[in-house]
Amino acid sequence: MLWSQSFIATLKEAPQEAESASHQLMLRAGLVRMLMAGVYSYLPLGLKALNNIETIIRQEMNSCAAAEVLLPALQPLDLWLKSGRDKDIGEVMVRFTDRRGRKICLGPTHEEVITELVRTQVSSYKQLPLILYQIQVKFRDEIRPRFGVVRACEFIMKDAYSFDQDDAGLENSYQAMHAAYGRIFSRCGLKILTVSADPGVMGGKVSHEFMVATASGEDIVLVCPKCKGSFAFHEGGLDSCPGCKVELDKVNAMEIGHIFQLGTKYSLALGANFLDAQGKLKPIIMGCYGIGVSRLIAAIIEQNNDAAGIIWPKEISPYKMIILPLDLGQAKIMEKAKSIYGQLNSLGIEALLDDRDERAGVKFKDADLLGIPLQLVIGKDALKNNTLELKIRRNNERFIAGEEEILAKTREILNG
Amino acid sequence: MLWSQSFIATLKEAPQEAESASHQLMLRAGLVRMLMAGVYSYLPLGLKALNNIETIIRQEMNSCAAAEVLLPALQPLDLWLKSGRDKDIGEVMVRFTDRRGRKICLGPTHEEVITELVRTQVSSYKQLPLILYQIQVKFRDEIRPRFGVVRACEFIMKDAYSFDQDDAGLENSYQAMHAAYGRIFSRCGLKILTVSADPGVMGGKVSHEFMVATASGEDIVLVCPKCKGSFAFHEGGLDSCPGCKVELDKVNAMEIGHIFQLGTKYSLALGANFLDAQGKLKPIIMGCYGIGVSRLIAAIIEQNNDAAGIIWPKEISPYKMIILPLDLGQAKIMEKAKSIYGQLNSLGIEALLDDRDERAGVKFKDADLLGIPLQLVIGKDALKNNTLELKIRRNNERFIAGEEEILAKTREILNG
Repeated sequence: MLWSQSFIATLKEAPQEAESASHQLMLRAGLVRMLMAGVYSYLPLGLKALNNIETIIRQEMNSCAAAEVLLPALQPLDLWLKSGRDKDIGEVMVRFTDRRGRKICLGPTHEEVITELVRTQVSSYKQLPLILYQIQVKFRDEIRPRFGVVRACEFIMKDAYSFDQDDAGLENSYQAMHAAYGRIFSRCGLKILTVSADPGVMGGKVSHEFMVATASGEDIVLVCPKCKGSFAFHEGGLDSCPGCKVELDKVNAMEIGHIFQLGTKYSLALGANFLDAQGKLKPIIMGCYGIGVSRLIAAIIEQNNDAAGIIWPKEISPYKMIILPLDLGQAKIMEKAKSIYGQLNSLGIEALLDDRDERAGVKFKDADLLGIPLQLVIGKDALKNNTLELKIRRNNERFIAGEEEILAKTREILNG
Repeated sequence: MLWSQSFIATLKEAPQEAESASHQLMLRAGLVRMLMAGVYSYLPLGLKALNNIETIIRQEMNSCAAAEVLLPALQPLDLWLKSGRDKDIGEVMVRFTDRRGRKICLGPTHEEVITELVRTQVSSYKQLPLILYQIQVKFRDEIRPRFGVVRACEFIMKDAYSFDQDDAGLENSYQAMHAAYGRIFSRCGLKILTVSADPGVMGGKVSHEFMVATASGEDIVLVCPKCKGSFAFHEGGLDSCPGCKVELDKVNAMEIGHIFQLGTKYSLALGANFLDAQGKLKPIIMGCYGIGVSRLIAAIIEQNNDAAGIIWPKEISPYKMIILPLDLGQAKIMEKAKSIYGQLNSLGIEALLDDRDERAGVKFKDADLLGIPLQLVIGKDALKNNTLELKIRRNNERFIAGEEEILAKTREILNG
């Protein structure tokens, strides 16, 4: 893509309202723009990163034989009355009455809706186990939205739901999803702290949270300095590592995923039953598995940045390479840039070509801020010595070589 | 994908509420399920078709150098007061006040939001022309939702917006989008009627509608029986073809796309200006370009079905082939089915393997109903004569041959 057609808008300074590193960088690199507090528009670079995260999630969900669905944001309030959660969830759920007099809410989560769907479609043990997931927009009437996309009124979640015949089946589904979460976060370039958690309003007994250690995190996780084990923080609770018997460190963290063994809370409330092999009617055993997808972008940036800007993990970066032709006055430099851009395209390597007539310093600064893993500089040397300069954003390593060698190095780095 | 993991739910009879052919088939083939009137959940087969449509739209938008963004569903009502459309649009727009006292609406369209975004990011003629688009969920408080996803309260749209320096630029953008629409609808297997239309509440002067002729269509288009030209219907208006001078036929049609030369309506109201090459401040000239994405599924089915079910166009079909092993009691039949499934996968051909222990008649009926372009039957002959049967859903043509020949034929048909 050409920079001039990409609606990229970088900022030299972070706007005052940006509190955390990720929020500042998401605004400065032009990933998002605020429409109102807690509500953000994704610009092309932010949307591309978001799509790359979603692709990883889909691949790992599909590898668990989970089937993708898409549920509505509009939900009948009636379902929440049946589950009894309309009161638990309180004012954070947006509610309105439509012109036909129907009481409707904007889904902050979808346990009720998916249970209702499965109730009408599943009747026999032969249809179980079943795992369904969606990547979809959620709404919360946040009284104090913060940290950009982290605590927002409109955000994107991956929510998955498992349906099993018995507790052993639920345990299998739960372990499969737990393992998939590990793969997802690792591919996202994240170091994760996993803790046992209180299921709270969701219901059920067993629950785990996936946390990212970051200075702006609103939660606290206890970490053992010796074995690196992580534990939930409870006021007046656990104060030394059960294994190592040393004092635990308090670490600020951001929640990016949460999984629950729900059991029969929703299937009993909504009547989602199945006939077992003996012809006996039983409630379906459920689990649910959430990831804050838009929040993941912030988490990734929190853990992958330096003073100059973002440092995208390869799989997440909106582009794999940024091509920086310097001195557009020289026609041959732009020709060379376009020729390499074409070759990368045919290799399936998405590149961004900075076709702006700007000074080298501006282009270098913006390239570092954007955080695309590879930068290819095409300057005077490209004409004089027929050499290009490849820079790795993460470690600042540079390679100067001819075109063929540079392309080979690019493939090596991106596949490595 | 295995049928048993795909959450496919076919129905022998269409539910009573389904009025149109597409609505009936979308329910019978298990593409969608109603949550409440006008609000639908997409099941895996429906979502896959939707994704395929979205892929085509993205490819054709990107080929016009349009950049993809993602705007929020939540919009400040304030923007609609500025454009003056809060009254024009009336009660069809959902409005509520949040806990912080902000007046918010659920976006039925995004002219105001995109103009506000571009106002803050674009200041110079050097940043124009610009085309932005999104594929995103919209909300309408429909008093009488009908025809399943066709007139719904929550639906998916592609909305694009062009930003130009002058009328000639707008004309260029408009023609590029008009041509892209032709390519999109043709790849979707649709025959389109294009008519000049009244811009109405959108504003501007020039506007075109893209219509699909179908019995359940709520609009009327006039078509010349001789030259096949299509014309907008106005009570007491045009009643013969201006070229051929013959009487026009009235045809029921469904609107699936609408494009508008907006001019300066929104840029003037919201102050979206740019400095031209002479340093003069001017309002940006805008166009907008909508496609009803979820509605397209219905339109495609309206024009591609027979008594047995859906007949998906190749590019839209959720799978390219359905594999039908008959008699699962014979282990070798399922082995053969899985081996072919694996080969198709490695060729990049997505197949659905009907692994249900059902009678052949049930499998054949369901396969016809689902409308996947190719059916591969693996029965006794696969064991006895080492032959398979390939059926083309659209024309019922059958080929009986060995495995290699069948795979070659499959590739030929899918690439043809």
